Amino acid sequence: MDLKHIIESQQFKVPRLMALFERANMMKKIVQRGGTLDYQNKILASLFYAPSTRTRFSFESAMYRLGGKILSTEQASEFSSEIKDERLEDTIKIIGNYCDVIVLRHIEEGGAKRAASVSSVPIINAGDGSGGQHPTQALLDLYTINNECHSIDGLSVAFIGALDNGRTTRSLAYLLSKFDRVKLYFIAPEELQIKNDILEHLNEHNISYEILNSTQNVLKNIDVLYMTRIDRARLKSKNINFDDFNVGPSVLKKLKKEALIMHPLPRSIEISPEVDLDPRAAYFRQAENGLYVRMALLTMLFENE
Amino acid sequence: MDLKHIIESQQFKVPRLMALFERANMMKKIVQRGGTLDYQNKILASLFYAPSTRTRFSFESAMYRLGGKILSTEQASEFSSEIKDERLEDTIKIIGNYCDVIVLRHIEEGGAKRAASVSSVPIINAGDGSGGQHPTQALLDLYTINNECHSIDGLSVAFIGALDNGRTTRSLAYLLSKFDRVKLYFIAPEELQIKNDILEHLNEHNISYEILNSTQNVLKNIDVLYMTRIDRARLKSKNINFDDFNVGPSVLKKLKKEALIMHPLPRSIEISPEVDLDPRAAYFRQAENGLYVRMALLTMLFENE
Amino acid sequence: MDLKHIIESQQFKVPRLMALFERANMMKKIVQRGGTLDYQNKILASLFYAPSTRTRFSFESAMYRLGGKILSTEQASEFSSEIKDERLEDTIKIIGNYCDVIVLRHIEEGGAKRAASVSSVPIINAGDGSGGQHPTQALLDLYTINNECHSIDGLSVAFIGALDNGRTTRSLAYLLSKFDRVKLYFIAPEELQIKNDILEHLNEHNISYEILNSTQNVLKNIDVLYMTRIDRARLKSKNINFDDFNVGPSVLKKLKKEALIMHPLPRSIEISPEVDLDPRAAYFRQAENGLYVRMALLTMLFENE
Repeated sequence: MDLKHIIESQQFKVPRLMALFERANMMKKIVQRGGTLDYQNKILASLFYAPSTRTRFSFESAMYRLGGKILSTEQASEFSSEIKDERLEDTIKIIGNYCDVIVLRHIEEGGAKRAASVSSVPIINAGDGSGGQHPTQALLDLYTINNECHSIDGLSVAFIGALDNGRTTRSLAYLLSKFDRVKLYFIAPEELQIKNDILEHLNEHNISYEILNSTQNVLKNIDVLYMTRIDRARLKSKNINFDDFNVGPSVLKKLKKEALIMHPLPRSIEISPEVDLDPRAAYFRQAENGLYVRMALLTMLFENE
Repeated sequence: MDLKHIIESQQFKVPRLMALFERANMMKKIVQRGGTLDYQNKILASLFYAPSTRTRFSFESAMYRLGGKILSTEQASEFSSEIKDERLEDTIKIIGNYCDVIVLRHIEEGGAKRAASVSSVPIINAGDGSGGQHPTQALLDLYTINNECHSIDGLSVAFIGALDNGRTTRSLAYLLSKFDRVKLYFIAPEELQIKNDILEHLNEHNISYEILNSTQNVLKNIDVLYMTRIDRARLKSKNINFDDFNVGPSVLKKLKKEALIMHPLPRSIEISPEVDLDPRAAYFRQAENGLYVRMALLTMLFENE
Repeated sequence: MDLKHIIESQQFKVPRLMALFERANMMKKIVQRGGTLDYQNKILASLFYAPSTRTRFSFESAMYRLGGKILSTEQASEFSSEIKDERLEDTIKIIGNYCDVIVLRHIEEGGAKRAASVSSVPIINAGDGSGGQHPTQALLDLYTINNECHSIDGLSVAFIGALDNGRTTRSLAYLLSKFDRVKLYFIAPEELQIKNDILEHLNEHNISYEILNSTQNVLKNIDVLYMTRIDRARLKSKNINFDDFNVGPSVLKKLKKEALIMHPLPRSIEISPEVDLDPRAAYFRQAENGLYVRMALLTMLFENE
């Protein structure tokens, strides 16, 4: 039952999710009153094989707010000037000597699992390949939904964008499937739709879902509009009309008054800046929540030692 | 009257400058006796869209000497592997959740002002575009002048180099214009002379200045020789003779005994290494002072919270 | 007698080596019980002109475990966007204002010595050029040998690989030459053999050695098999058969039962992963020891202030 590594969102059952969210609330209070915790002797190492300053800073700030220290690499693919193809396993075994937890952003699906299999310290998957997972993103997404909608059971959540290689969509869909009466919508051009493994998982868990290629008829029904990045060049090369997959004033008009608009960020053109002023725009609050959820996760990992 | 962000040197009036310098003197004493301050729970984030290890380390060391912590990016232009054109405003809003102050080196003039307009935490402009400002450099320059010359009123200061896109020259000229009986010389090949906006500012403030293309006749008159980087390739492409714009033994001979030779560093060939041994060479002391001035600035920003 | 900088392994005489190893043992105990030391006000700056995350993290973790702080650069060659050819001496003089010790990985042989000649704070050479030294690597290598073999006198040590530009081999050979009845083997294709300056040093110190181009006949005699990286492309271009210079099951069979297999890491193909399970494979323990030896070295440097 112990939390040894954080590799994929399926690891988290509902009771642990609720314990995590409660702890994250506590972390929020500590940060807001300028406090800290007593993890002075703990070191977190950020091992990022692709740059993601946002995610890296979120983890590193979480470690600092706990009182700890950080070792950091912006671009681990230039790990050494001497050898370009070191086995990830070797790297992890060595770096484990120098820290108490490793946050890994890898470029290959399954990288985090491989790392965990040899690591002497906890591994946190901060994204592994475009078809892999990003479980802490899903956890902070779910925490945001839970805090703002007061419950997850019974919610309708629409995912919009390039869902075929949407790591965050995959991870969050796995988590949502653990709750009751949830309804999911996957809205994407056919060529970019969610992959079958997710749909099979939803079928197994009796989660109701719809596959759509336009937001037109569902905006009035949904509680959470989860936008993901759309690559303009990719859409263009496939001759896909972008207008059905972005959020602007016309979408705002059709959305429920209490709906949430979410996005893992960074955004491109799929949400126009004027949406930011709408109280339903939750994406910057989401980013803030990343701090508290990651603080809570780190303390859970450290408790198991 | 509060200091909320540090964007341009014009923000600083003489009383605040003097308060800053006094505080920087105090910081120097604390550092020299190996002490620290109690900002343990404060986090500074370095967001550098162009590398400048010198400036970055100066800020980060200042934060450490205050007892605080740092989040750091060497090359923020590779902020994300997923999107290359994120709006600076989005980045700032997100990073503001993870720290208590952001030090921003941006590539576009006006970047710092844009960042400040949306930021929840103080922004410090550590250089924005080649035609922008670098106010903390100007503050440490002025602090060095004030400490070594005991007063700024009545000084003659010569700026030498490629002044047309000299961020540090611009920022320091603004600051010097706040003092009495100051005389400025701008010495550069005609094609690289200081821009008109600065001269207009000096006219408005009744600051006396001269535009020259050689140091020949002024060396004996000046108290501060402020050298800036000269790009050899640029001079060569314009067929400009470099000899009039560098400092070597012959210039040393003509300079006043108590003059200061300053440079924001890094230098190229405009000051030969043998000048370093001359007590008038103040540029390494300048770099040291950067630490104390930045410590003092950070404490001023934190006081306003 | 004071240790002011760490530039080359020859600096260390046997009594200091033994004092260092004893102190490293103490550091190991402190780390293993989750403790720390009271160097809170000390700052280490990592100045890496070529990336080496492994070595950098080892030093930075050592500093953290002592209670200190770190300034870090992954890629100091992009030190400034304004000037590409700053003199190392200038950089060192400036950075010395912002920290208490500089760890320097430079790209030119002799870089560390040049840095030390102008530095106001201790310089630690973390590798200077492929023909230079990497003394802290040699110290942790020797510490590992001393701990696992209980003594260095009388040992037979074989170096295998591209020894001609093997920084670690050079540094360790210098150290071993300080001990009694040591026997060294240099095993490499003729074109990649150890350079004459090392052999002359060994001759002067009456150290017995052999130059070989195959491991065939010596495996049964040696106590330490020190593998170094082999560049496959280089071997191929020279038409050299790789099989004589790697470690796999057949070598394991011939090696003494209590022999050590060492490697500075990262490895390429010269040690197959299956060797890792053999208790004689000491390279990951070596990497761990780097932490304790570097902690001990840092405290020795700080004592001299």
